[in-house]
Amino acid sequence: MTDIYTLAARAKAASVKLGLYDTETKNRGLEAIACALEQRMDEILAANEKDISAAVESGTRAALIDRLTLTAQRVAAIANSVRDVIKLPDPVGEILEDFTRPNGIRIRKVRVPLGVVGIIYEARPNVTVDSAVLCFKSGNVAFLRGGKEAFNSNMTLMGIMRDALEGAGLEPDCLLLLDDTSRKTAQEMMCLRGYIDVLIPRGGPGLIRSVVENAKVPVIETGTGNCHLYVDAGADIDMAVNILFNGKCSRPSVCNALETVLVHRDAAEKFLPAAKAKLDEMKVQWRGEEKARAIVDMFEATEDDFADEFGDYILAARVVDSIDEAIAHIAKYTTHHSECIVTSDAAAAERFTGEIDAAAVYVNASTRFTDGGEFGLGAEIGISTQKTHARGPMGLKELTSYKYIVTGNGQIR
Amino acid sequence: MTDIYTLAARAKAASVKLGLYDTETKNRGLEAIACALEQRMDEILAANEKDISAAVESGTRAALIDRLTLTAQRVAAIANSVRDVIKLPDPVGEILEDFTRPNGIRIRKVRVPLGVVGIIYEARPNVTVDSAVLCFKSGNVAFLRGGKEAFNSNMTLMGIMRDALEGAGLEPDCLLLLDDTSRKTAQEMMCLRGYIDVLIPRGGPGLIRSVVENAKVPVIETGTGNCHLYVDAGADIDMAVNILFNGKCSRPSVCNALETVLVHRDAAEKFLPAAKAKLDEMKVQWRGEEKARAIVDMFEATEDDFADEFGDYILAARVVDSIDEAIAHIAKYTTHHSECIVTSDAAAAERFTGEIDAAAVYVNASTRFTDGGEFGLGAEIGISTQKTHARGPMGLKELTSYKYIVTGNGQIR
Repeated sequence: MTDIYTLAARAKAASVKLGLYDTETKNRGLEAIACALEQRMDEILAANEKDISAAVESGTRAALIDRLTLTAQRVAAIANSVRDVIKLPDPVGEILEDFTRPNGIRIRKVRVPLGVVGIIYEARPNVTVDSAVLCFKSGNVAFLRGGKEAFNSNMTLMGIMRDALEGAGLEPDCLLLLDDTSRKTAQEMMCLRGYIDVLIPRGGPGLIRSVVENAKVPVIETGTGNCHLYVDAGADIDMAVNILFNGKCSRPSVCNALETVLVHRDAAEKFLPAAKAKLDEMKVQWRGEEKARAIVDMFEATEDDFADEFGDYILAARVVDSIDEAIAHIAKYTTHHSECIVTSDAAAAERFTGEIDAAAVYVNASTRFTDGGEFGLGAEIGISTQKTHARGPMGLKELTSYKYIVTGNGQIR
Repeated sequence: MTDIYTLAARAKAASVKLGLYDTETKNRGLEAIACALEQRMDEILAANEKDISAAVESGTRAALIDRLTLTAQRVAAIANSVRDVIKLPDPVGEILEDFTRPNGIRIRKVRVPLGVVGIIYEARPNVTVDSAVLCFKSGNVAFLRGGKEAFNSNMTLMGIMRDALEGAGLEPDCLLLLDDTSRKTAQEMMCLRGYIDVLIPRGGPGLIRSVVENAKVPVIETGTGNCHLYVDAGADIDMAVNILFNGKCSRPSVCNALETVLVHRDAAEKFLPAAKAKLDEMKVQWRGEEKARAIVDMFEATEDDFADEFGDYILAARVVDSIDEAIAHIAKYTTHHSECIVTSDAAAAERFTGEIDAAAVYVNASTRFTDGGEFGLGAEIGISTQKTHARGPMGLKELTSYKYIVTGNGQIR
C-alpha cells in the first residue's frame, strides 16, 4: 500500500501543474477519461462483480448492493456525465474584481482552484468518477478515499482515469485514490494540514459527523437533511398535499426529502386527512404528536422522530398554534438544509424566509429542488449545510478560492 | 461566572433578532456605542489601569504592556473607528443572484449574516470593540473570549457597549464576552457546534494553531505571515531595496512584514550590499545561507530561520540560481499570506503570480499593503490565510454567508 504522506506530497505537487492547465487542456483530459471508461467497460464490470460477490457473501442488504452495482448502462451514464462537465464553463481565472487604489497599485481578485480537495466517501463507485472530474475541471487535485465495499471498482475506475490522463500527456497525479480503506487512513487524511486544502465528506450522517469532529483541515459539511414542510393557515390544501407527497415519496433516501410536516391548527382538519390519504398510496408511516393524532390515526411521535432524518417512507407530523411555533420547532430541529412553507399569505412567507436559517428556504415549491442540476449549476459535489465558504448546492465555482494579484511600480506604505 | 452554554444559547437567540435589524437600526446602535465609549472614558481608563498594574507586577515585558495600554487618545480613536464602521455599506440583504428556472421557480441568492461569530483573542483590548462592531454591522452576534491580561478592560468595554445597545432599545445580547478566561472556556468554545457558526482566532501563532487543531466548529485561520521578497535578475535595485526596507522595518511585528529575502545570483552582488547598508539604519540582523554570506557579512541562517515569522528586526537571506529555486523555496516555507517579486521581466511576474499560492501576490509593491484599509474594504477583522470561505483581508462582506430563497406556485420535481 502506498504511504498516505507520499500520496499527499504527490497531490500537492500535481496541484501546481493542474492549477496552470488552461480550459482546453482540462477538457482534453476529461474527454480522454470519458472515452477510456467506455472502452474499458469490461474491466470495470469485472472489478465491480468482485465487490458485489463479496458484499453478497457478507450478507449486505439489498439497498446497499444496489448502490454498489455498476451495469453497462450505468457506466455509459457515468461517461456521459463526464462529457456534461466538459460543457460547463471553467471558473478558474475569472477576474472577480479589478481596481486601482489612489496610490496607483492595481488589485485584481482572481478565481483560483482550492488546490487539493480531499473526499471521503462510502459505497457508491460512481462518486469516484464524479468527484474526480468535478475537481479536475475546477483545477483541483482530487485526493480520494472510498469505502472498502467498492474497493475493486474504485481502484479500477481510478486506474483507467489516470491512464487516460497520462495518455493525453497530462499529469496522472491530478487524480489520486488511497489504496488502503482502513479507518486509520481516514483519520490520517483528516489531519493532513498543509496538503489538503479542504475535505468534503460524502455519505451518511455517521461519516459526516466523524469528519466534522475530527478533521484538523478545513471541512465542508454536506448532506444531512432533516427538512420540514410548514402548512400555514389558509394554505392551498391541494398544493400542500402535492408538495408533501413529492418531498416525502419521490426519493425518500435523499437529503432534500421531507421528514416532518407541521400544520397550522386552522388548516389541520382539512390538510391532515387529505395528506394521509395521498401518502397511503406509498404506505408512508405517520408518527404524530397528540393534536395530529386526534385528527388522523397514526403512531405516537417521540422526540427522536422529530430529530431524525428517516431517509425512508416515514413522516413525523405536528399541529402548531401559530407560525411562531412552526419557526421555533424548525429552529430546534433543522439541519439547515431545506425548509418549506406553503402559504397564501405574503407576510407569512416573508417571515418564514427571513427567520428560517437554512441553505434553501422554499415558498410554495418542493424541497426536492435543492440540487445542483435543478439550480442550474450543471453538476454538484454536494450540498453544504454550513454557512462558511459555500451554502447549498456546490458546483464548480464553489470548488474554487481566489487570490489577490497586486501590481505596482515600487509603491511602499 | 456565567455558564458558557447559557451564554451560547443567548447568543443564538440574539442572532435571530440581529439578523432582522435593518441598516438604520444597526447604525443607531453603533452611534450609541461610540458616544458611550467617549462619555464613560474614565471607567475605561480606570479598568485598564488595573490590568496594567497587574501586568507590571507580574513582570510583563514592555511591548506587551504597550499593547494592553489604553489612553484617552486611544479610546477616542476607538470611538472614531466605530463611526467609520457606521459609514461602511451594510452587506446584509444584498441580492447576489436572481433567476427563474424553466419550471417557473424563482431562485434568489441573498446575502445573510453568518449568525454567531466566535472570536478568541489575546491582550489588546481594542479588539473587543473592533470585533464587536464589525460583527454587529454585518448582522452577527459577537461571542468573544479575550485574554486574562485585559480582563478588566474588556469587561468594562463590553459592559459599556451592551448598556449602549440597551439604551438604544436594542438587544444587548448581540454582544457577549465570556467572563471566564481560563483555558477551559477556550476549549469549550471551540466545541460549541450548533451555537457558533464560525470561530476566528486573533492573536499569535500559538493561539491560532491551537484553535485550528482543536476546534470542532468551522474556523477561519488568520494572520500568520512568513512573507518573502524575491528580487529577480535584472530587477530595479533601488526599488527592491525600498520594498525590502518598507516590508521589514515599517512595522516588523505585523503579519504582512517581510521575513526572508531571496535574490537571484545575477542581482545579488549589487542588491545585497545596498540592502544591507539601508537596513543597517534600523539595525536589522541578517541571517543568510552560504552564498549570501559570501557577499555580505551576516549570521549563518538555520533551517528555522527560513521557517520562522520573526516579528522583529531580523531578516533571513538566500541567493538563488533561478526563479524556479525561488518559487520552490517559497512553496516550502510560505504561510500563504503575502509574497512579492521585484522584477522588470513580465514573464517572470506572470510565472510568480501564477504559481505562488498566497492570499496576496505582489509585483513591484510592498507586502505591507495586505490590509483591509489599504485594499479599500474600510475595516478588517483579520487576514485569512486559508483558501475556503475568504482569503486575504476580511471585511464586512467576508463576515456573511448567503441563503437561497426559492418561490413557486406549487412546483414539484
